[in-house]
Amino acid sequence: SRSIRLAVIPGDGIGQEVVAQGLKVLSAALPQDVKLETRSYDLGAQRWHATGDTLPDAELESLKDHDAILLGAIGDPSVPSGVLERGLLLKLRFAFDHYVNLRPSKLFPNTPTPLAGRPDIDFVVVREGTEGPYVGNGGSMRTGTPDEVATEVSLNTAHGVERVVRDAYERADSRPRKKLTLVHKNNVLVHAGHLWKNIFDRVGQEYPEVTTDYLHVDAATIFFVTQPERFDVIVTDNLFGDILTDLAAAVTGGIGLAASGNINPSGAFPSMFEPVHGSAPDIAGTGKADPTATVLSVALLLSHLGYGDEAARIETAVASDLAERDAAAPRTTDEIGDALAARVSG
Amino acid sequence: SRSIRLAVIPGDGIGQEVVAQGLKVLSAALPQDVKLETRSYDLGAQRWHATGDTLPDAELESLKDHDAILLGAIGDPSVPSGVLERGLLLKLRFAFDHYVNLRPSKLFPNTPTPLAGRPDIDFVVVREGTEGPYVGNGGSMRTGTPDEVATEVSLNTAHGVERVVRDAYERADSRPRKKLTLVHKNNVLVHAGHLWKNIFDRVGQEYPEVTTDYLHVDAATIFFVTQPERFDVIVTDNLFGDILTDLAAAVTGGIGLAASGNINPSGAFPSMFEPVHGSAPDIAGTGKADPTATVLSVALLLSHLGYGDEAARIETAVASDLAERDAAAPRTTDEIGDALAARVSG
Ligand SMILES: CC(C)[C@H](C(=O)O)[C@@H](O)C(=O)O
Ligand SMILES: CC(C)[C@H](C(=O)O)[C@@H](O)C(=O)O
Repeated sequence: SRSIRLAVIPGDGIGQEVVAQGLKVLSAALPQDVKLETRSYDLGAQRWHATGDTLPDAELESLKDHDAILLGAIGDPSVPSGVLERGLLLKLRFAFDHYVNLRPSKLFPNTPTPLAGRPDIDFVVVREGTEGPYVGNGGSMRTGTPDEVATEVSLNTAHGVERVVRDAYERADSRPRKKLTLVHKNNVLVHAGHLWKNIFDRVGQEYPEVTTDYLHVDAATIFFVTQPERFDVIVTDNLFGDILTDLAAAVTGGIGLAASGNINPSGAFPSMFEPVHGSAPDIAGTGKADPTATVLSVALLLSHLGYGDEAARIETAVASDLAERDAAAPRTTDEIGDALAARVSG
Repeated sequence: SRSIRLAVIPGDGIGQEVVAQGLKVLSAALPQDVKLETRSYDLGAQRWHATGDTLPDAELESLKDHDAILLGAIGDPSVPSGVLERGLLLKLRFAFDHYVNLRPSKLFPNTPTPLAGRPDIDFVVVREGTEGPYVGNGGSMRTGTPDEVATEVSLNTAHGVERVVRDAYERADSRPRKKLTLVHKNNVLVHAGHLWKNIFDRVGQEYPEVTTDYLHVDAATIFFVTQPERFDVIVTDNLFGDILTDLAAAVTGGIGLAASGNINPSGAFPSMFEPVHGSAPDIAGTGKADPTATVLSVALLLSHLGYGDEAARIETAVASDLAERDAAAPRTTDEIGDALAARVSG
């Protein structure tokens, strides 16, 4: 009989609440014969305050011993900015070589968008997850003095760029429109930019059916609001991907719906699935958090583990739920989770 | 009698066309007793193809000897990406220490916006112009091989950050709403981010009437489309400012209206005014380019040189012209320039 060993990191703020709904829907979606074993990890702001730990080696080791990780949200205003992000969230992405940070964006019918004219949005951003300005290679000297100098180094390797670009071509090739857009800023960040562009062009020769396109990141933000329907698959650097996917979430109904997978396609380490949103401490405990982004992240998780039908059932359930949502009658986190679970099992 | 010595760099693509309209409106706006002396510099793609020069030292020297610079647009697909941007445009911004890259964003009545509900947008981005990832401090090794490593270094100094932050506080303090938002990514780019945040907080103590706010750049893009009315003055790093101001232009009627000033507040070097848009080679020569962004940049130029009334007259002319525009009856570049000049003189 089959089984899934799932590590769960609820994290901070609304993390706990949305993860509970994600697990509810996961259980509802799984076939009877699949055994789900979950182990919860107490990591995040509370743990850091209590012990000073962000992600001890023993727990990093133990996390490895799972098929996948489901993460809620990390970060709290009581913790200095960067401590948990770098010490926990990014540490996981880097340690487990999550080089494909997959972020689909789709505007569902009936879902509110700030854009006039409700454009037809359905694209996926393949954000590089292990390089670029996120490597943590920076420092400061004469810190706190009028002579301080602070640096941040973006590191980019042919190895790191090629593997994520290849993954993006594969995804584009398997979609009906077969279109891939590279986003960078190669007129200013010429060294990193040319590395990306050269590899993008070279690998493209192996995918003659994929139409390609290049945009500077600033121009890309314009098209996200004026012509988002032009995008199919986008591949981009870690920082540009961070910025673009929040904007993509905003135009497709908000951060409450945006799912993501931090994927290690080789399978050498467990992949990690999380909503794009943060810990939203302002609404933690109020029942106002929308668990849909986490539920859609569970669908990405199932799909990654080979449960494609179950993933599709969750996506259909979300689409139907969204189609019937009534902005005038908001439901609680729990109610949305229950409704989705019911649709998935029914 | 007074005079303005203006250096003009029309540049590439539509640059020539829009600059011609900018000069037309400038002449119409200036009081009779002000003598306008212009000198045009042949810089850009054509020059580079002919001579290999982007900005020779002699011309850089000669540019210094002016009260201001009006620039059209730089860049052409026939030139490798980065050559003209780094060798001409950014070289000017750096050589003339244009540390305040000023980019106002206002949604005028009747102007189309991709946002539903036509929010009330009226903010200004103070983008740092001489530091950050734009310094050109990067390189690559084993270039073109599977072992290539490419870097981009973001350099940030207390000196450079404090002066632009101070400028932004001054601007916020002089506006009715007195609100200043810092945008960075200090949960990931911790060294540069903390330098910015610390200086932002410290300088803020000198401006007790200014309300402050901090946003990560990814979150800021969300608010640009869901709640742009929340912004008054934004101060941010060179790269984040580049991205945010294109998005700001998109939501306030497009890049055809977005003006900018590359300002050296000390007056040690001439400040440079340019539309935010690029050279748009696809529409060059068709008469489709909207010169309004250049005309509004001329208003920023006049205001910088102390001609506040004349600047205001141009802004009023643009507002009236926009109010009467008919999307079904587009005018040529020249017609728009003529109409604006007529309004300004009338
Ligand atoms: C919390 C933060 C470190 C993270 C990132 O920048 O990657 C988040 O914004 C995201 O997009 O997952
Ligand atoms: C052309 C390019 C170098 C420039 C920049 O990145 O600053 C442009 O996008 C701008 O915003 O003025």
